[in-house]
Amino acid sequence: MTNKNGKKSNEDTGLDANLNAYLKDNADGQLEELMEWLRIPSVSTQAKYREDMVRAAQWLGDRLETAGLENIEIIETQNHPLVYGDWLHAGANRPTVLLYGHYDVQPPDPEEKWNTPPFEPSVRDNNLYARGATDDKGQLFLLVKALQALMDTRGKLPVNIKFIAEGDEESGGPALETYVKLNGEKLAADICLVSDTEIVSPDQPSLIYGLRGLWGCEVVVRGPKGDLHSGMYGGVIHNPAQALAELIAAMHHGDGRIAVPGFYDDVADLDPAEREKLAESPQDDAVFLEETGVPALYGEPGFTPVERIGARPTLEVNGMWGGFINEGFKTVIPAEARVKISCRLVSNQDPDKIARLFTEYVTQIAPPTVSVEVIPLFGIRAVSVDPDSPAMRAAGRAYEKGFGAAPVFKREGGGIPIVLAFREVLDAQVVFLGFGLPDDNAHAPNEKIHLPNFYRGIRTVIHFLDELATGKG
Amino acid sequence: MTNKNGKKSNEDTGLDANLNAYLKDNADGQLEELMEWLRIPSVSTQAKYREDMVRAAQWLGDRLETAGLENIEIIETQNHPLVYGDWLHAGANRPTVLLYGHYDVQPPDPEEKWNTPPFEPSVRDNNLYARGATDDKGQLFLLVKALQALMDTRGKLPVNIKFIAEGDEESGGPALETYVKLNGEKLAADICLVSDTEIVSPDQPSLIYGLRGLWGCEVVVRGPKGDLHSGMYGGVIHNPAQALAELIAAMHHGDGRIAVPGFYDDVADLDPAEREKLAESPQDDAVFLEETGVPALYGEPGFTPVERIGARPTLEVNGMWGGFINEGFKTVIPAEARVKISCRLVSNQDPDKIARLFTEYVTQIAPPTVSVEVIPLFGIRAVSVDPDSPAMRAAGRAYEKGFGAAPVFKREGGGIPIVLAFREVLDAQVVFLGFGLPDDNAHAPNEKIHLPNFYRGIRTVIHFLDELATGKG
Repeated sequence: MTNKNGKKSNEDTGLDANLNAYLKDNADGQLEELMEWLRIPSVSTQAKYREDMVRAAQWLGDRLETAGLENIEIIETQNHPLVYGDWLHAGANRPTVLLYGHYDVQPPDPEEKWNTPPFEPSVRDNNLYARGATDDKGQLFLLVKALQALMDTRGKLPVNIKFIAEGDEESGGPALETYVKLNGEKLAADICLVSDTEIVSPDQPSLIYGLRGLWGCEVVVRGPKGDLHSGMYGGVIHNPAQALAELIAAMHHGDGRIAVPGFYDDVADLDPAEREKLAESPQDDAVFLEETGVPALYGEPGFTPVERIGARPTLEVNGMWGGFINEGFKTVIPAEARVKISCRLVSNQDPDKIARLFTEYVTQIAPPTVSVEVIPLFGIRAVSVDPDSPAMRAAGRAYEKGFGAAPVFKREGGGIPIVLAFREVLDAQVVFLGFGLPDDNAHAPNEKIHLPNFYRGIRTVIHFLDELATGKG
Repeated sequence: MTNKNGKKSNEDTGLDANLNAYLKDNADGQLEELMEWLRIPSVSTQAKYREDMVRAAQWLGDRLETAGLENIEIIETQNHPLVYGDWLHAGANRPTVLLYGHYDVQPPDPEEKWNTPPFEPSVRDNNLYARGATDDKGQLFLLVKALQALMDTRGKLPVNIKFIAEGDEESGGPALETYVKLNGEKLAADICLVSDTEIVSPDQPSLIYGLRGLWGCEVVVRGPKGDLHSGMYGGVIHNPAQALAELIAAMHHGDGRIAVPGFYDDVADLDPAEREKLAESPQDDAVFLEETGVPALYGEPGFTPVERIGARPTLEVNGMWGGFINEGFKTVIPAEARVKISCRLVSNQDPDKIARLFTEYVTQIAPPTVSVEVIPLFGIRAVSVDPDSPAMRAAGRAYEKGFGAAPVFKREGGGIPIVLAFREVLDAQVVFLGFGLPDDNAHAPNEKIHLPNFYRGIRTVIHFLDELATGKG
């Protein structure tokens, strides 16, 4: 198997001969097993998939057991189950690493835009297409396979391992956070390995030292008590869809800055040294234009795209609807219109404060002709880690061995809710060892994982655990 | 049966004894037959109802035959069938009246808001609830029952009758217009009776002397080539849903006036005499606030609600959508967002010119960060008729007999596309003899017809035809 630049993806990356042979021999089986895993539609935000979520948790627990982990638990919560397992026999002089991933996936909508069905995994051109292939079932699965490879070949692991997976990452459910807070001792670790991010390109790994936070809400604009005929009432009442559009338009200034007063108050300035480091990223305007296909980029003036994605907050419409949206035409004034909005947060922005500022602003600009309700849904703070910690240096060496190239440093635009609790409750160093790619279509139709990355990912995780065992800073 | 003010709806309105007895005896049967008719889901804009449309046309043809009409035809068109029948034996000294209605209905969306299913007619409190009950199958059906009552009791009609019904009124299809243009002689008539409008209240009939036109389009805003993760791309591209909201917001000034340059150029000023006449309408601010339930009215400054609905143009969002709009949350930047917009037109506003002005304006204000397409869908001009013509005076007398009150004069906000062709091609006087009510929920969930109005409607149509036969001006 070769990656898109022609290099072998399952090439020897300096692992011992046994491991190397094992990984080559088991590559096909690992792929088949991953496809079985992706066939379970583990969508956390929609009630109809509830049983599939339980099935996915059970499946993962079984695989942890097969990999040689102990004390496997499927932990019931008020939302979806957690999955736990550990192996704690490396000795007190070796660090303890908590491995994290999530087995829930985004809804597959819009399903008609998938080339092959979202829950029928399909391999094309070295990519495996399925919902969850990269975010996060594929990446979670490669952690398990790395542990299994070590156990199967060496009969032991180089470090003490705790493994926790959740099913509420995409729905913002608090189950894992609550569990972490109540079980600080059980989950105590020196390092948290999070594999739920992406690297810049198949041949250019990147190390993340910042993640944005997230605050989300739904805004409802209500007008008449029922839908009205636009001929009989058009001209005397404020169309709720129009009123909502006017509210949405007022959320940004014309130049792309967010118009909510106070929104930027707790955003730290970027220091010149960091800007220099970020400027080394190969992701310039041309890359984003090519990746997205938009006619021109957009965003806050005074910042590069990489800065805007990692170090600046956003306010985005994730969904907006009102009135007649089916085939045909219906000359109706809708009774209400709704929008789902989320804000990416950075630095010290507090989701609760953002909720208050946003609600105050919307309430203040809402016209008297409709009623407006803001329903806050979830919020997590941004996080940043020391790019120069021993664990980060170990991750850098692991990436270099696994991919043949030293990683660049990066701020990531998306958030991973639980990371904050790992750091604050467990006091662990967090390392993001991700293997997704920018064109993996996470959260979108035709999500995929690049198979060479999947295999290199397994090797990189093994290198990382070995690096941690040597204790080199 | 009594109306909501306690008056008998099927009371003797001065018709001859035979007819009066016939109408009382047949009231229950007429209701049952209407319910049968409303059970056929004749939605013209959605392909899945195509066979039901054919069934509805056939059903109507059968009833015309039962009523005693001749030369019944189900006329195939490129869209839905037309239904024709006539009775031309009243003599050359009697006028010829073309009766018009449409058998297609609006889609039932949103179905979950109906108290009883849209295609399972249900009687509650003197109202019959079903999609099409008032618009227009109920009103069309009462024309047929008026003709049948005359034929069954007198064996003849007071005037020559041509009857044409279409199935494309709600979809803006051109089938009937094309047919009228090609069959001017066959459809030639002195008077066109259109029963597809409403009166002010059950005890206050109204006569319409103006109808607004309509222009409709869909606007598509396209951004990235696929949906994107809002964390990974939020901050570098213009969210198409946001861009669409900004476009929609820019379509009106803050005070409610339409912002499209030139939009009002061909709108005639209201003359003081007409404003005085319109001011007699009982529909003041309080009535509209009560009917709609909105916290405050909205619209163009300087005009009363009745003036805004009848004599001023509008631009309304009928449907708007983009991104993830299902249960749950998906932090996505949608690839595109869409809006269905329609404009009510008045005076000399030309739909083609409005299409051009609108498209130019949207193109001019569209930002370079997205691509914007305007797809014009349909257009009809406004129409007004002489409120003092002999046919209008006959209609006034018929309403007075049927409802016990002289009608007030009114401009109607909605349009009826074919009226223009009736007037221009057939050179016929158009009379709107409508029996709907403002709270009938036309185009909305829980559409109904007020049953006393249905029965009074049959009587009023009979009075009207008798009035026309006497030839009094």
